[in-house]
Amino acid sequence: MNDSSEGSMMHQFCHELFPICRSITGNGFRQSLNMLKELVPELEIHEVASGTQCFDWAVPKEWNIADAYILDPEGNKICDFKQSNLHVMGYSIPVNKSVTLNELQEHLYSLPDQPDAIPYMTSYYKERWGFCITHQQRETLKQGNYQVVIDSVLENGNLTYGEIYIPGEIQDEIFFSSYLCHPSMANNELSGPVVTTFLAKWVSQLKNRKHSFRFVIIPETIGSIVYLSRNIENLKKRVVAGFNLTCVGDDRTYSFLPSRQENTLSDQVARHVLKHVYPEYTEYDFLTRGSDERQYCSPGVDLPVCSIMRSKYDCYPEYHTSLDDLTVVTPSGLQGSYDAYCRAIECIEKNETLQVSVLCEPQLGKRGLYPTLSTKDTYSQVMHMMNFITYCDGTMSALEICNRINAPFWELFETIDKLKKEGLLITA
Amino acid sequence: MNDSSEGSMMHQFCHELFPICRSITGNGFRQSLNMLKELVPELEIHEVASGTQCFDWAVPKEWNIADAYILDPEGNKICDFKQSNLHVMGYSIPVNKSVTLNELQEHLYSLPDQPDAIPYMTSYYKERWGFCITHQQRETLKQGNYQVVIDSVLENGNLTYGEIYIPGEIQDEIFFSSYLCHPSMANNELSGPVVTTFLAKWVSQLKNRKHSFRFVIIPETIGSIVYLSRNIENLKKRVVAGFNLTCVGDDRTYSFLPSRQENTLSDQVARHVLKHVYPEYTEYDFLTRGSDERQYCSPGVDLPVCSIMRSKYDCYPEYHTSLDDLTVVTPSGLQGSYDAYCRAIECIEKNETLQVSVLCEPQLGKRGLYPTLSTKDTYSQVMHMMNFITYCDGTMSALEICNRINAPFWELFETIDKLKKEGLLITA
Amino acid sequence: MNDSSEGSMMHQFCHELFPICRSITGNGFRQSLNMLKELVPELEIHEVASGTQCFDWAVPKEWNIADAYILDPEGNKICDFKQSNLHVMGYSIPVNKSVTLNELQEHLYSLPDQPDAIPYMTSYYKERWGFCITHQQRETLKQGNYQVVIDSVLENGNLTYGEIYIPGEIQDEIFFSSYLCHPSMANNELSGPVVTTFLAKWVSQLKNRKHSFRFVIIPETIGSIVYLSRNIENLKKRVVAGFNLTCVGDDRTYSFLPSRQENTLSDQVARHVLKHVYPEYTEYDFLTRGSDERQYCSPGVDLPVCSIMRSKYDCYPEYHTSLDDLTVVTPSGLQGSYDAYCRAIECIEKNETLQVSVLCEPQLGKRGLYPTLSTKDTYSQVMHMMNFITYCDGTMSALEICNRINAPFWELFETIDKLKKEGLLITA
Repeated sequence: MNDSSEGSMMHQFCHELFPICRSITGNGFRQSLNMLKELVPELEIHEVASGTQCFDWAVPKEWNIADAYILDPEGNKICDFKQSNLHVMGYSIPVNKSVTLNELQEHLYSLPDQPDAIPYMTSYYKERWGFCITHQQRETLKQGNYQVVIDSVLENGNLTYGEIYIPGEIQDEIFFSSYLCHPSMANNELSGPVVTTFLAKWVSQLKNRKHSFRFVIIPETIGSIVYLSRNIENLKKRVVAGFNLTCVGDDRTYSFLPSRQENTLSDQVARHVLKHVYPEYTEYDFLTRGSDERQYCSPGVDLPVCSIMRSKYDCYPEYHTSLDDLTVVTPSGLQGSYDAYCRAIECIEKNETLQVSVLCEPQLGKRGLYPTLSTKDTYSQVMHMMNFITYCDGTMSALEICNRINAPFWELFETIDKLKKEGLLITA
Repeated sequence: MNDSSEGSMMHQFCHELFPICRSITGNGFRQSLNMLKELVPELEIHEVASGTQCFDWAVPKEWNIADAYILDPEGNKICDFKQSNLHVMGYSIPVNKSVTLNELQEHLYSLPDQPDAIPYMTSYYKERWGFCITHQQRETLKQGNYQVVIDSVLENGNLTYGEIYIPGEIQDEIFFSSYLCHPSMANNELSGPVVTTFLAKWVSQLKNRKHSFRFVIIPETIGSIVYLSRNIENLKKRVVAGFNLTCVGDDRTYSFLPSRQENTLSDQVARHVLKHVYPEYTEYDFLTRGSDERQYCSPGVDLPVCSIMRSKYDCYPEYHTSLDDLTVVTPSGLQGSYDAYCRAIECIEKNETLQVSVLCEPQLGKRGLYPTLSTKDTYSQVMHMMNFITYCDGTMSALEICNRINAPFWELFETIDKLKKEGLLITA
Repeated sequence: MNDSSEGSMMHQFCHELFPICRSITGNGFRQSLNMLKELVPELEIHEVASGTQCFDWAVPKEWNIADAYILDPEGNKICDFKQSNLHVMGYSIPVNKSVTLNELQEHLYSLPDQPDAIPYMTSYYKERWGFCITHQQRETLKQGNYQVVIDSVLENGNLTYGEIYIPGEIQDEIFFSSYLCHPSMANNELSGPVVTTFLAKWVSQLKNRKHSFRFVIIPETIGSIVYLSRNIENLKKRVVAGFNLTCVGDDRTYSFLPSRQENTLSDQVARHVLKHVYPEYTEYDFLTRGSDERQYCSPGVDLPVCSIMRSKYDCYPEYHTSLDDLTVVTPSGLQGSYDAYCRAIECIEKNETLQVSVLCEPQLGKRGLYPTLSTKDTYSQVMHMMNFITYCDGTMSALEICNRINAPFWELFETIDKLKKEGLLITA
């Protein structure tokens, strides 16, 4: 279905986005969004002012940062933001002063269990400053005075997000969401917005789109809350299936996080695709959720949003550290996710409830659809077709039937089209 | 319940029917049906003209055959129809000509994996001729000219089927179907029509029949389609449980093929009987169906038809070859199936929804139904009775209760009758 | 929650009750009931006359006994009622005569498999006399004449039971039943009425009771039938959850016997408590029932009555013998049951269906309920709270949510109170 070179193109695109310092607001987010827009010009950029009330939340101040570092007692520059933007705790307030090592320790974050990793830390809703450092380096710090410099600005501004709407034959929508608020990390998160953008591009080129498609690229949590507060009525009316794209870049496994309702159309499709693509995939409990399904699936919102992932956040060692880089994410990892979502989209597009138009089995032989010689072996050849037909009683969707007969839906697309052309299957 | 000598009588009857060359139409089918009618005079014979439209199908031409053989280059008669009617592909058109070995090979069918078996082949819906031969013999054929002779007639005529209707107290019917269209093979198929006929005989002698009973003996597939096309309204209105009898003759195992709906009364009864008769029985998926349930259970027909079998078609090595003979089918194999179906009939006849007529447990002691001495052991003695009563709340059928309490329904027939006589159980 | 000294107090109380000879009627039952009333003065004592019709049953004659023994051929007193009241079969009619050993054997009961145990035997509904004896001693009896003396009275009188009603804010009731009709045995049964009485005492001291509570102390079987026949309308209208307390005294395990309907509020609560208190507990099938749930759960009565037990009747070796004494029942065994039932009561009291009052996740941080620093670890700290909120959609009870999120309900009591105070959770 898909040229495998998308994997390489996506990986290359991740490389370009990687160094930018993003947060839930600010110019890094805007710059990244504009790079996505170059791929999909349909992308519209929205700005929402700090302080805007969104359900129980308010849009926070906008944060921007120019530089940050620590000068050690000997004047060496450490925790240099320009070396890795993970060195600064996200949303750190500006600071420029001399502190003792003891004072400094209160503002340092490191991971004793992963001594060579810089952890990823943020403090969006309490004003703080902090530096993240490998535990290895932290252990070498000597007594003395340290000059801490964070050249950041935290002030009223905007929260930025992107939205792509691609209309189809009907107004019912398939919804995709991904987030772009993390600095230099690859599987969580660049893989998400990059695969989402490439999917939007593919969808925009699809002939005969039945559903309309909506893709949003937001900051995590506050972004989905903001987006929902402005669009909930429309989403509740139109979204028939939705997906939150995150951690879709490595090549180690496939995982699935269901929606809160656990068996929506999205869930059914995701499980169907994964069962046939990678039967050993892991299905996680919704209790292990941690991304925007927390908002999309919240009571009263109740959107059918689930996630097909590769290695799930919190379940791979590099998660939320500087080790989650573009060696973790691979072209084939990205390609696998992209293909799985394309399959999922096709299944939703093609899914319908069919009914066989004749009583008893149709005589497929006279239509050239059935072998004319009955032998020990011929039955198996037409098994999927006969099995599919036998469940077309107007009560099960094509997808449900494929699950019942244990056949990948896409292998039946052509057969179903033939049977519909023959008038043997009709829409129920 | 049943005299075990039915097994021998059925086996003997199979012997008499075995040599006849049957097909989906023709005199072999008629002759066999007339032999069944000698056992059950209620059997009515129906003829349906070639070309008659039946749903998506039409009744095929009638096929009859007098003789067939091949003369090898040395004048030896091989593939002699009079030795085994399996040597001729069913529905072969007439032929009488000389062919080279190479030309002949195009018309020969054999099984490399079962070199001593003549395969069973048919070509009902495309005009062809062919011979079936053991692979062993095929390997010995030498270059030269072969005279192929098939003295068959394929012309407009009739499709024949038999029907037995035995009225009961109510018009609701228990339905049985079996097919009689195979030439000399024993488990698949003579066991089916023979057990069916003996069941019809047993039912016709039952006192106090509650349900009416209908038994049809048809050619497979086209026969059930023809029969349904003429009787569907009546069947849909009246059939409460139905069974397709096939492969009921060997003694190696029991199997169950559910209906498409999987949990009709027939399915419940069949599973109940098998669980208590032969707990290790195999339940097959409906996806492995291959007989007339394909029609009876098709969408819009939706009859509650399932199969209690011994070794299921396609699941034993002799299937659809000359090896499926009367050494595979045994008297005890036939008897086991017959008994299981008698049990099933009794369960359906006796099944009803009951309600206990008093609040709290009835005092069974004063009615002589409960031990008067409470010891560590006495409770177990009346356990089944007490368990049955406790679920008689008017919501579960007697059969469902027996499943819940893990007791064979038939072991409670007498107890239930007593409790009904005492007025403790009443029909809900 | 509970001072562990209740275990010792309950064990001491069992000691006081142990020697009394109780039966389904009579002064032993009355005396025991009066001792319970000293603990809980709210206990009301009811008397129901012999012969009173109760559904399918009638109240039996009242039985009282002063003495009983056998004089062996040498004049030695054996089977002395004053040594153990188990020596006399319950409800034995008076007798005073000389019998041969052979005649005596017809009236002796012993357990060959437990040669040092006196079995517990009764004959309530057929007039008999009998002695229970260790098998060891029975084997030593010599030929000769035996004087058998049973100084009992079986005549019209009353059946006695106790009832405690403790009103709450609403009339919906939590119902408890236990039985007091066994002579000197400890796990089955003194543990039951003793724990029940202590629970009644605890409940009577509960502040802000929401539900009303009803505790009945009855003779088994006939007692629940009598009680139901007089109170069924009220019970059916008001009881939202109920428990039959039996075998709650030993320290070896926990067990659960569901109600007939298997998933009532009582069942849900009992399973929830046991899962978190003693995950290895045994759930028995309702088919193994043997106490008053036989009446409470009978069709048409249908009360939601189940049992949290320690070692279930019929499932521990000392059951219904003289070996079931106060070494089998322990203070910690009683305490464990008492605590489990207190937990169950709290769960029912606190259970309600809640709804989150805002769309999307509430911002808990600004209310001091959420850590302000996002790290790899902080999420787990508030997991239970967030998980609970996410299921508060007005369709699941708090208890069901706790089961879904695998958290002990009681660990969330405080959190739920806080969230209600904040107005984030409201009653659905």
